[in-house]
Amino acid sequence: MERVYNFSAGPANLPLEVIEKAQNELSDFNDSGMSVMELSHRSKIYEDIHNEAKEKLLKLMKLGDDYELLFLQGGAYTQFVTIPMNYLEDKSSAAYINTGSWTAKAIEEAKFFGNVEVIASSEKDHFTYIPEIPEINKDYKYLYICTNNTIYGTRYTKDKLPNSPVPLLADMSSNILSENYDMTKFDLIFAGAQKNLGISGVTIVAIKKDFLTKSAENLPTMFDYKIHAEKNSLYNTPPTFAIYITGLMAKWLINQGGVEEIEKMNIEKAGKLYDFLDNSKIFKNNIKKEDRSLMNVIFFTGNKDLDAAFLKGAEKEGLFNLKGHRSVGGMRASIYNAMPMDGVESLIDYMKKFEMENKQEA
Amino acid sequence: MERVYNFSAGPANLPLEVIEKAQNELSDFNDSGMSVMELSHRSKIYEDIHNEAKEKLLKLMKLGDDYELLFLQGGAYTQFVTIPMNYLEDKSSAAYINTGSWTAKAIEEAKFFGNVEVIASSEKDHFTYIPEIPEINKDYKYLYICTNNTIYGTRYTKDKLPNSPVPLLADMSSNILSENYDMTKFDLIFAGAQKNLGISGVTIVAIKKDFLTKSAENLPTMFDYKIHAEKNSLYNTPPTFAIYITGLMAKWLINQGGVEEIEKMNIEKAGKLYDFLDNSKIFKNNIKKEDRSLMNVIFFTGNKDLDAAFLKGAEKEGLFNLKGHRSVGGMRASIYNAMPMDGVESLIDYMKKFEMENKQEA
Repeated sequence: MERVYNFSAGPANLPLEVIEKAQNELSDFNDSGMSVMELSHRSKIYEDIHNEAKEKLLKLMKLGDDYELLFLQGGAYTQFVTIPMNYLEDKSSAAYINTGSWTAKAIEEAKFFGNVEVIASSEKDHFTYIPEIPEINKDYKYLYICTNNTIYGTRYTKDKLPNSPVPLLADMSSNILSENYDMTKFDLIFAGAQKNLGISGVTIVAIKKDFLTKSAENLPTMFDYKIHAEKNSLYNTPPTFAIYITGLMAKWLINQGGVEEIEKMNIEKAGKLYDFLDNSKIFKNNIKKEDRSLMNVIFFTGNKDLDAAFLKGAEKEGLFNLKGHRSVGGMRASIYNAMPMDGVESLIDYMKKFEMENKQEA
Repeated sequence: MERVYNFSAGPANLPLEVIEKAQNELSDFNDSGMSVMELSHRSKIYEDIHNEAKEKLLKLMKLGDDYELLFLQGGAYTQFVTIPMNYLEDKSSAAYINTGSWTAKAIEEAKFFGNVEVIASSEKDHFTYIPEIPEINKDYKYLYICTNNTIYGTRYTKDKLPNSPVPLLADMSSNILSENYDMTKFDLIFAGAQKNLGISGVTIVAIKKDFLTKSAENLPTMFDYKIHAEKNSLYNTPPTFAIYITGLMAKWLINQGGVEEIEKMNIEKAGKLYDFLDNSKIFKNNIKKEDRSLMNVIFFTGNKDLDAAFLKGAEKEGLFNLKGHRSVGGMRASIYNAMPMDGVESLIDYMKKFEMENKQEA
């Protein structure tokens, strides 16, 4: 079968170049006589992969050596726990902004460890915008946000990122390295790799060294950021193959011109889709315009049968995984860095055709 | 370069058939038009991979539907924490048998949560054997062992597995499915996949359902075995590619004739190496014969320069990663299920040659 367009929210599509590079060298990495999957994590050949991926990611984020980059396991969900375990010892307080399911889950997990104050939320309006951020009390240990909300299709634009008097922490799982944020605003960011940075099984954590020193002492080893940092994420066996793919993704992103260039492409890709939606007779997007995600474009017809017909027809056109999250319904096109413009245009073409054929139904 | 023999302790060598299968279908899985790395974990096509891997592993372990099999992240190390978090609430007690670094680490992590009693240990003799197990107090929440000690090269034979009046738990990271243990003796076993079951980044946990019901309530989600079990290890995004490779490994193992057949091959492979060592003039293995590992064969000359010369020469013969663990020194040949007899024979040939050339040095 020829390659389809995969609009999955994650694990998501990868650049064909990355897949082909991995495929070509899968049975013999760099003339080692071994697959990259078989390399000991204590070997020089693997350490080069590991360190190169780390350096490229820091370079793409424009973070200097006042930051540490970690490769951890357990997904963003494990960070929901690890962060409060490290910073809310003695039941101290942190501020969270609730912009949807993922922040709601982070809030629930943090409550196991400390006092959580939800200082802003768009829940009453079904998370259709990024809420106004009130003045932030300086007594909080940190302020926690999720920069892009995969399920609801909202994001913080550069202008809306909080100017926080306390350390700013962010879940960037679904928009890391997709737009040109000033990353030095953050004391800690994390992202599961399976959307913009490769495959599932590795979580990237970038942490300011000064903030790292403030993490709790005497934690179980796997939750101790300081130990992972001291050991260069090699205290225990890291997910080597997933890190290798993240390295290939970082290299691909640099070849695209880095974050500035990919941001331009992302603005153009999402712009075309939102323009179409705003002018459509049957498809709608209900997100506040200035807060719309560049990565996850949600849309719906308002008619469940029509949504179902749309999804069924999409696969025949080679357009896959457009079903919206079960908690929202409708449709969602996840158009991460690796989604080519052709994929977006093919989707719009199909939407146009569907609209023509179903005008009377709307 | 042609394929080398990789004696790494893990990540370790994989069967060439598994690598080639993964390579052939890496750009298009099962005519989906997508790479297996890109499949949504909520798609039918991925769920089939997931469930098939799970069923094959349970079949290989000869465990029935009174057991649940989980795919988790974070390596064996995360299980060192998750187990006591689930079973030592209220500072209750568990018994641990200390057979080397990995049990020592599990003991340290468990102390964060409850009372740990080391009821047997071979530490005073540098872990060169499996200690006698005393009668076990019925008040312990569980008895914890590590069935194969990667660093020291010892293992529990079938006969030495404890008959425990309390639930028996085991770290099987380095010998899972390598010999025909009666798996129903265990209430919980776990194993990082990167030695006998694929690549790093996924941890297999098999847990008796009856024991699962006794796990703690109200834990952070990622440490709650019950949630992972209820959601079929799909509560959050699992390490999909690593699970796919584990599925290929399980299939390969079934094609080898299952655990009975692979055990025969492992006994033969390790037997040849130990026979050579026991008759060698310069190489020694100091492990009690009945407790010798089938997976990790340690050996040394007693002369550091000679060890170094041996290791240097080995790579020229296409024999890689034979260096012993830094805490033990000398050499170690890890010969997991996927190591072919040819690899063991090539190693013995080189050892013979080295012995001839260095007799006077020993």
